[in-house]
Amino acid sequence: MGESAPRKDAPAKVTGRAQFVDDLTLPEMLYGVTVRSTVARGRIQRIRFDPAFEWDECVIVRAEDIPGRNVVPLIADDQPCLAGQVVNHAEEPVLLIAHEDRHMAESARRRVKVEYERLPGVYSIDAALRADAGAPFKSYTVAKGNVEEGFRRAKWVVEGEYETGAQEQLYIEPQGVLAVASPREGVTVWGSMQCPYYVQRALAAVFGLPEEMIRVVQCETGGGFGGKEEYPSMIAAHAALLAWKSRRPVKIIYDRAEDIAATTKRHPSRTRHRTGVAPDGTLTAMEIDFTLDGGAYCTLSPVVLSRGTIHAGGPYRCDNVRISSRAVATNHPPHGAFRGFGAPQSIFAMERHMDRIAKTIGMDPAELRRRNFLRQGDTTATGQVIRERVELPALLERALAESRWEEKRRTFAVTNGNGNVRRGMGIAAFMHGAGFTGSGERHLRSQVAVEATAEGKARVLASSCEMGQGSKTVLCQIAAEALGTKLEDVEIAQPDTAEVPDSGPTVASRTSMVVGKLVESAARDLRRTLDQSGLLEGRTFSEACRELVKRRGGFKSWSRYQPPPGQWWDDDRYSGDAYGTYSWAVQVAEVAVDLVTYETSVTAFVSAQEVGRVLNPALAEGQVEGGVAQGIGLALYEKVVYDKGRVVNSQMTNYIMPAPGDLPPIRSIFLETPYEFGPGGAKGLGELPIDGPAPAILNAVEDATGAAVARIPMTPEDLLDALERTHE
Amino acid sequence: MGESAPRKDAPAKVTGRAQFVDDLTLPEMLYGVTVRSTVARGRIQRIRFDPAFEWDECVIVRAEDIPGRNVVPLIADDQPCLAGQVVNHAEEPVLLIAHEDRHMAESARRRVKVEYERLPGVYSIDAALRADAGAPFKSYTVAKGNVEEGFRRAKWVVEGEYETGAQEQLYIEPQGVLAVASPREGVTVWGSMQCPYYVQRALAAVFGLPEEMIRVVQCETGGGFGGKEEYPSMIAAHAALLAWKSRRPVKIIYDRAEDIAATTKRHPSRTRHRTGVAPDGTLTAMEIDFTLDGGAYCTLSPVVLSRGTIHAGGPYRCDNVRISSRAVATNHPPHGAFRGFGAPQSIFAMERHMDRIAKTIGMDPAELRRRNFLRQGDTTATGQVIRERVELPALLERALAESRWEEKRRTFAVTNGNGNVRRGMGIAAFMHGAGFTGSGERHLRSQVAVEATAEGKARVLASSCEMGQGSKTVLCQIAAEALGTKLEDVEIAQPDTAEVPDSGPTVASRTSMVVGKLVESAARDLRRTLDQSGLLEGRTFSEACRELVKRRGGFKSWSRYQPPPGQWWDDDRYSGDAYGTYSWAVQVAEVAVDLVTYETSVTAFVSAQEVGRVLNPALAEGQVEGGVAQGIGLALYEKVVYDKGRVVNSQMTNYIMPAPGDLPPIRSIFLETPYEFGPGGAKGLGELPIDGPAPAILNAVEDATGAAVARIPMTPEDLLDALERTHE
Repeated sequence: MGESAPRKDAPAKVTGRAQFVDDLTLPEMLYGVTVRSTVARGRIQRIRFDPAFEWDECVIVRAEDIPGRNVVPLIADDQPCLAGQVVNHAEEPVLLIAHEDRHMAESARRRVKVEYERLPGVYSIDAALRADAGAPFKSYTVAKGNVEEGFRRAKWVVEGEYETGAQEQLYIEPQGVLAVASPREGVTVWGSMQCPYYVQRALAAVFGLPEEMIRVVQCETGGGFGGKEEYPSMIAAHAALLAWKSRRPVKIIYDRAEDIAATTKRHPSRTRHRTGVAPDGTLTAMEIDFTLDGGAYCTLSPVVLSRGTIHAGGPYRCDNVRISSRAVATNHPPHGAFRGFGAPQSIFAMERHMDRIAKTIGMDPAELRRRNFLRQGDTTATGQVIRERVELPALLERALAESRWEEKRRTFAVTNGNGNVRRGMGIAAFMHGAGFTGSGERHLRSQVAVEATAEGKARVLASSCEMGQGSKTVLCQIAAEALGTKLEDVEIAQPDTAEVPDSGPTVASRTSMVVGKLVESAARDLRRTLDQSGLLEGRTFSEACRELVKRRGGFKSWSRYQPPPGQWWDDDRYSGDAYGTYSWAVQVAEVAVDLVTYETSVTAFVSAQEVGRVLNPALAEGQVEGGVAQGIGLALYEKVVYDKGRVVNSQMTNYIMPAPGDLPPIRSIFLETPYEFGPGGAKGLGELPIDGPAPAILNAVEDATGAAVARIPMTPEDLLDALERTHE
Repeated sequence: MGESAPRKDAPAKVTGRAQFVDDLTLPEMLYGVTVRSTVARGRIQRIRFDPAFEWDECVIVRAEDIPGRNVVPLIADDQPCLAGQVVNHAEEPVLLIAHEDRHMAESARRRVKVEYERLPGVYSIDAALRADAGAPFKSYTVAKGNVEEGFRRAKWVVEGEYETGAQEQLYIEPQGVLAVASPREGVTVWGSMQCPYYVQRALAAVFGLPEEMIRVVQCETGGGFGGKEEYPSMIAAHAALLAWKSRRPVKIIYDRAEDIAATTKRHPSRTRHRTGVAPDGTLTAMEIDFTLDGGAYCTLSPVVLSRGTIHAGGPYRCDNVRISSRAVATNHPPHGAFRGFGAPQSIFAMERHMDRIAKTIGMDPAELRRRNFLRQGDTTATGQVIRERVELPALLERALAESRWEEKRRTFAVTNGNGNVRRGMGIAAFMHGAGFTGSGERHLRSQVAVEATAEGKARVLASSCEMGQGSKTVLCQIAAEALGTKLEDVEIAQPDTAEVPDSGPTVASRTSMVVGKLVESAARDLRRTLDQSGLLEGRTFSEACRELVKRRGGFKSWSRYQPPPGQWWDDDRYSGDAYGTYSWAVQVAEVAVDLVTYETSVTAFVSAQEVGRVLNPALAEGQVEGGVAQGIGLALYEKVVYDKGRVVNSQMTNYIMPAPGDLPPIRSIFLETPYEFGPGGAKGLGELPIDGPAPAILNAVEDATGAAVARIPMTPEDLLDALERTHE
């Protein structure tokens, strides 16, 4: 561990041997397509099938063909697999068609016309909050101390309102599933996904079958970022329903336009801050109101809201905090999991707000943060006592030094008078909880196994999914170290519910830390068995494994999640140890704003973080660079445009993501403080880096131009507007 | 029927929707390769695996891994799936390797070295006939009249010896199979093949499983020509054995070199003729000795020999006939089924011999044939009474007229003195029995069904395989006519042992005639049901089918083979009605021989045939053109070169087939005399056209140059030799 070991998944991907779902072609296979609602809310009145088309060649599935429950079960179980009488969002699946010719399937889809009675829809957080719009999917209140008392102690009360837009995950491989299904054999699906056991549970409900009759196999997956957490259950159900009815294998692969328009995106948000600040700049009270647009169905909104809520107060000590939050229903396509899971939204607000406070009270924004950082022994907003040393001051100093903060700020103050380019520096400090929130991990009871194989390898069995982030490599590194052998002796199974135990979903920055810990424990157990049996005497590790299998006819070590000692959580009061631990970071962005085109470029970026021990430096840097790039997209480029609830820019030509030329050099700095309960001292890292870029960049834009933009993505038009307002 | 209806298989093939086996890619699939013997006969002493290779990544199957019997069951059950201690021919499978990377599998294959103790081998018919070489696989004697008496009545006794070489089928798609297998689920294979039920039977033996646990699916098949009659059982067993051991799907696809070197080819032959001829040119006695080189294992040699034997006497009346024949064992890779199935070999000899007789007695070769043609009421060599009118005289006149026989012969006699090109005309007359020999069809008890489908179609269910010849189209045409509906209302299932009944193998010119008759009968039965139920009143055919399915929950008409009335066969005396009926043909070849390069070009070709009623003229012409082209290859180009029993020209760069530029205009003439027991009056056509080109061409070469070549293929070198001998 600690070495940049070569990726376990690389040889298969480089040689083309890796199987993505669209590489599979089964005998007699059909291609499935989805007829989707063209309106955001309406009642289906009639479905017309173009009589000129050969419908006999197609298999068609409607809601009434579903053998079990018409639901994609998740939290509220409110989302149907196929719309019944009513549609609640644009692109909602209405019926399914399969044809043996991919192009004819698409042609068939275009020849179905669904007629609707349009109903009024809700397309904004404001509209959703009006009294008559119905209850939110979920709301939370987090309270600590006495906010009124805090405000009384304040010299300044600073208010602000911040908004973030939807964001598309833009994984390189669009969603896709291949299914075979029959009443006798049950259902088997192969697909691009993060959470095979979620898909298994969903299919069991849709087909009314026991879970043992559902087999879910993760194919090589070209990126997920949360977008393949809940939606694969929907596609899997669709493909399997077509397979069930046609008695033939059915593959559904979305193209980019369908994927962008129909699948989940990051929840848009609005956050209001009211903060009391003492004369010395310490925070005396924080009142935060946080709202997410959940879209038309509940999906994961309660848990996204939860993480956003818990992170809304930032990494700051404050005795008096009240956070109120809610996820509201609109008629947008449901929003869902996306790297950061609510935290980038509320952290954007907190960190922009910190700059507003700094400006209000006339303090350097770095200094304001430094004075308020959480320290060992402090409690977070949920009352969690921070037991480890908090490295934020050190991270801040490193980030400032590396970005030449002071020097550049002085220089820019002088040079910003010249020409049409304005330069500025911005900062963001934040933490990110690793693993499931509250008692989530306790309920999951994740399990992994490490087995000795007849071929003389140790093999990790877990449902955690490689999707480019490097989890296969890291889990093998952990196992190899625990086994005291070399990485070549360790392999890892492809997730397949028929073969691997449920190690939980591949989300929430939990794979290295939580699943890795289980792998470490199971691997140590296998090592102990080898040691105690004396099999390693005079044998290589590989020979010893072979011999173990020969003698015992196979050997598996199991390990099941145990919460770290002393962790408590009160789900009713939303209070306690929200996460096993946190990772910490300070990021600094340097920007250049062109006052002719109003384009903003990020010209340099420093990300300093403390994520416990770094297991694989190359992969960790990759996580940071990817997260920063995605955060730059969130800040400046990636704008989902809706027209009456329908995404109208579903192509990569009009939904713009940052390309390599749009990215600055990204400097990653890791301060390593081993975490006692992580494997080899590691904590979670996957989400952390996307939390900070947006506020750091908009802070830098304000530093450069004076424009206090409070909404992302900030397009050149938004900046022009803001500058005009600033100059009025 | 009688129309050139468009091909049923064309849309899927043209759009790329058709699935050939190599289009399929199953999850977790491995690629299989075969380690083959490098010697023709030997004892395996040791197998070395290159220690530098990662064998852990491979699955290896040897003979001892076979769960059932180590045999490819066919007739003698002598051929192992994988060699045990001894190999009997070069390229005999020794062990199997699978790897998930196609290229690594091939690399692994090259890193296995099998060491042999070499044993002496048998590489020619002469060597095989020596007393110590062991018994032949099979021998027959067909006798009629009194041959000695016949020779006594003769004015001339003409002797000759003729030889034919091996020939490769050169289907456009090499052999390939994909298999999944497990003790619980049984074995399923998809492959390129002609006879799914043969493969089922073979796998049942290899795995020791009941046939119900073996499912065989024919994929789209790019040509067979007999080469996919028996060999797919071998590959299927190999792929399934690898799948059984690895518990993963395994695909084996041969490349061209492996396919040419290892799989079956046309049996080489030697035929000796001794013929008594009366003063008027009538044949008084025929003594024929016919030998096939069966290769190292029996495979289908007994039945190939049978057809070759029965056709050896040509379409000629002769009261005194004795044919002795045998298929001998050599150490060549086993020879097997190839379009014509022994008949092209013995017909080559008969028709070259007729020209030798004509030359000997000074009679025009057309006239000699005309005088000796079988007529209605005559008996063949096996004593079969020809009950139908024999159109040979009319076919001869049409062929001569169309080829301008008389005129060209006169012209060439004059012009052959000029320059370096010699031109000539050659003729061949022959018959070909349709369907299985003797009581074969009776034993097969083929079955087909025609079902009404819920989509309003009639669907033909048969195991007969489309492989480019157009059987799907013709069987649907037959069904449509019997149903009294249009072709679009009829579809046909892809052969799959789990779905279609056993309508016998797709061989022996039996599909249109024998299986087509069953389809006609089953379709008539379905029509009767529709008529009697009154469902057709006021409904289209399609609506009536739908209604029938709705009322009865599905409907299938079955039909099982019944021999034509009065057919008898004595298998012990090899006497009786060898075939239900015969098709007849006369072909005329015109050639140009270049006396500088000794190359022979076929410059014009006429094929006149009587095959009963022609069901689809475009497809029938396709059969004739393809057969003639393949016959031209047999005559002049396609030479398999062995070195100690090993094929050394296994590439299409050194095994030469005629390309389009090597082919003459081919003129097809059909005289239609409906056959009472064929569907719509049709007889078999698939093999007939390949019987005549080789003798017609070599007769034409003799006409042009005087060189009496008796061996095919006749290369330029062979012709040079012969001309030098002629001029000595």
